[in-house]
Amino acid sequence: MKIVICIVFVVFCRSIHAKVNNDYWSQRAKLLQSEKKSMFGHGIVLDASEQAVNEILMKAKNEEIDKGFKDPSSFLPSQNFLRVHDSIDNSTVFRVIRDMPKGAALHVHDTAIVSLDYVYHNLTYRPNLYVSQQDDSLRLRFFDKPKNDSWTLLSDARNETLDARIKRQLSLEVDADPDVVYPNGNAVWKKFISIFVFGRDLICYRPVFEDYTYQGLLEFYQDNVLYVELRTILPTLYELNGTEYGPIEVARIYQRVAERFERDHPDFVGLKLIYAPSRRVNASKVREYVATARSLVDAFPGFVVGFDLVSQEDIGLPLVEVADQLLDLNNELPFFFHAGETNWYGSSSDENLLDAVLLNTRRIGHGYALVKHPELLEMVRRRNIAIELCPVSNQVLALVRDQRNHPASVLFAADYPVVVSSDDPGLWAARGLSYDFYEAFLGIMSRRADLKVFKKLVYNSIQYSAMSKEDKWKALDIWLNKWQAFINKYLGRVS
Amino acid sequence: MKIVICIVFVVFCRSIHAKVNNDYWSQRAKLLQSEKKSMFGHGIVLDASEQAVNEILMKAKNEEIDKGFKDPSSFLPSQNFLRVHDSIDNSTVFRVIRDMPKGAALHVHDTAIVSLDYVYHNLTYRPNLYVSQQDDSLRLRFFDKPKNDSWTLLSDARNETLDARIKRQLSLEVDADPDVVYPNGNAVWKKFISIFVFGRDLICYRPVFEDYTYQGLLEFYQDNVLYVELRTILPTLYELNGTEYGPIEVARIYQRVAERFERDHPDFVGLKLIYAPSRRVNASKVREYVATARSLVDAFPGFVVGFDLVSQEDIGLPLVEVADQLLDLNNELPFFFHAGETNWYGSSSDENLLDAVLLNTRRIGHGYALVKHPELLEMVRRRNIAIELCPVSNQVLALVRDQRNHPASVLFAADYPVVVSSDDPGLWAARGLSYDFYEAFLGIMSRRADLKVFKKLVYNSIQYSAMSKEDKWKALDIWLNKWQAFINKYLGRVS
Repeated sequence: MKIVICIVFVVFCRSIHAKVNNDYWSQRAKLLQSEKKSMFGHGIVLDASEQAVNEILMKAKNEEIDKGFKDPSSFLPSQNFLRVHDSIDNSTVFRVIRDMPKGAALHVHDTAIVSLDYVYHNLTYRPNLYVSQQDDSLRLRFFDKPKNDSWTLLSDARNETLDARIKRQLSLEVDADPDVVYPNGNAVWKKFISIFVFGRDLICYRPVFEDYTYQGLLEFYQDNVLYVELRTILPTLYELNGTEYGPIEVARIYQRVAERFERDHPDFVGLKLIYAPSRRVNASKVREYVATARSLVDAFPGFVVGFDLVSQEDIGLPLVEVADQLLDLNNELPFFFHAGETNWYGSSSDENLLDAVLLNTRRIGHGYALVKHPELLEMVRRRNIAIELCPVSNQVLALVRDQRNHPASVLFAADYPVVVSSDDPGLWAARGLSYDFYEAFLGIMSRRADLKVFKKLVYNSIQYSAMSKEDKWKALDIWLNKWQAFINKYLGRVS
Repeated sequence: MKIVICIVFVVFCRSIHAKVNNDYWSQRAKLLQSEKKSMFGHGIVLDASEQAVNEILMKAKNEEIDKGFKDPSSFLPSQNFLRVHDSIDNSTVFRVIRDMPKGAALHVHDTAIVSLDYVYHNLTYRPNLYVSQQDDSLRLRFFDKPKNDSWTLLSDARNETLDARIKRQLSLEVDADPDVVYPNGNAVWKKFISIFVFGRDLICYRPVFEDYTYQGLLEFYQDNVLYVELRTILPTLYELNGTEYGPIEVARIYQRVAERFERDHPDFVGLKLIYAPSRRVNASKVREYVATARSLVDAFPGFVVGFDLVSQEDIGLPLVEVADQLLDLNNELPFFFHAGETNWYGSSSDENLLDAVLLNTRRIGHGYALVKHPELLEMVRRRNIAIELCPVSNQVLALVRDQRNHPASVLFAADYPVVVSSDDPGLWAARGLSYDFYEAFLGIMSRRADLKVFKKLVYNSIQYSAMSKEDKWKALDIWLNKWQAFINKYLGRVS
């Protein structure tokens, strides 16, 4: 009798034990499933062909991560892009991404979209370009005839030293370790701004400006991007005869270049402008900006689509100081504010996020600090405000050294409305969007993120753009055809 | 008539305009208020004296941040602790923190709690300590008489080179830039583990072990910590005569040291152990661990309080592989698992977080990756699982270079149950908890975080400890007296 009771008891315990354990494993599976279902791209369905291509992609991704896991020095998203961009070119994951049609680029800046190659090898060899080297300052500018004798024809002055100096002034790239050359954000921003200042007179010669813009669109197009929204300060352009062009005329020049580009590339959906002058001004200057923005939108409906303020947020005018003026513009001109491009938690730049959201911004530029503001995060989701993530920029400008620490992991984990863009690719040897897609995919998203996220990034880039509804459908249709071609190309490699 | 209508219209517009703007400002104030109300420490009320001391603290904090904002190279939480700990000693904010009574240390490791100063200048000068230098390997061990002639009495062998080598083997500190010497997590973990291996024979000589442990408690006590929970592997101890002590005996030795320390320091609440052997084993070894853990808890109720697994999580046994065995222990022995001490999102170490939570862990060691798992985050809150944040450790062990990017900002923003601890302070020239409190306060929390957060950290450290209810009240009472003295001391400086 005792033995029977014992056996029954043991069997009972075992079944309890089995039940506890079964509960555990089913809960675990449920939790993993639930994580998967709330991740970025969760709603996307891959058809059989896409699944086959996904396998190629994920094989390459897992191999690259596994290698990095064993030898962290081989893991590229952990290292400064300025040092590893050439290695990225050899990544299989990157090559697949480069081949993909990638939708729209929604966060890029006017005079930083063209590769150094073109700017240096083409633009600096144009006729009528003069150089001035006084003390420490180096300048380039086109003249019919220079105003004073500090200027020499560049083609006469060229030598190895000068050429190297010019190249250095056109890019953040350095020969030494960039983390040492640029030990913090302020140091790299100083150089960053100096590139814009130096490049201005070179790029803002009207014929060069047109070529520069055309080339910029071409580089995005060649990277399989089908539409671009450009933040522009609408810089003053000049002719050799001294004629200068103000914002309205410059917008018109942009429009002409865009039309020409679209004619030459019928499968490119277009260019639009966001007027985005410098925030490194005092509040009264913003009143002028607002007036200019109004005239631009009146003059170019559907082409100039919004307003923003640019330059280093930490030391620029906080939105809160001009909120009253900006409120006047509300509902008249959409806002696309940079906000929270900082790691100073609780600073004015951090709190720009509050004002951007309360000012009804359509999208947030960077929003790097957004995850530190849980209530804003929920407002962003509710109000359907897209976050423009620019991973390479954030790394190069020293916000984060290792993409695996980029806060956007949190945004991807919970499927916030994210788009990925490239900010200023020309200044750091990137091109188009591919490098940023690579960093986001390999460095910021989960190991489990797959081909679905790229479709989601494309959909978001179209959905959150300022395109008309009609153009959105057109863009989607063009993309879909290219996507099918991309899938078929890789399918060919499977069989 | 027309004029009247116009005036009425203008007045009407102005009032609409004023209303829109008023709405904006009230919404903004509400949002800021709401952020404040959901932040870590929001529930704490400061009395008038505390408010006065808070002003001193916040003045120093704001000055230190403002200086860092202008000159980032002066901002210490952005820089490797190994390089800047001496500068931290000069920070006013740090000095205030060092003076504070700081509650309990809930995440520290047995053989890494004592400063290099003591280990080197005291322990390595003990009699009977021998050195062996064969090829690249350096060893220290106490003998009555060494087994073979590879061993020399250290006091005979000492010279500058050997002394320097011993010091280097006892600490992560380096003469060069630590970010260069340790370019990634694997590199620094390799050195980190080698310190434990080298130190074992030095520290595990029973009389030395007792002194080491006493000194460790003393250093925490001197840093105004009133209770310690030690993760211990319960290393085998030895006597000169060859006698060795296993886990049960070592736990008893710990208990005796703790009792002696408590007798000598009646305002110290105590020491408890969490049995935490290495996770760098195969699954079958865990069965042994579990058996040992059971006997320990039986033999030392209220002293050995739980179970964990330690060592580099990325390359150690994932919890999922031993979940079945660990489930058997559930409800019998509380778990305090390390989990998510990684930035490999989607890896097995990242997903240890799932298992830790599902295995009903009482606290999570590090939980660095937790913010990437929103559903787990909510479970952690619901189940009241504390997250043991160790900022200096995470920086030194290369998870994050700049504390401003530490994901715990997200935890503090939404008042998750966080405690701050120091992991292995002796290996990187920290002491007690003060340095970690400093990094959390200045580098990870908002600029707006103030004295309230320290009270909250203390309350959490008591609440989430394994102390008995009675001891919790005792700890709180002791802390409160010390806190009052701390406040009075600083009040004296105001008047």
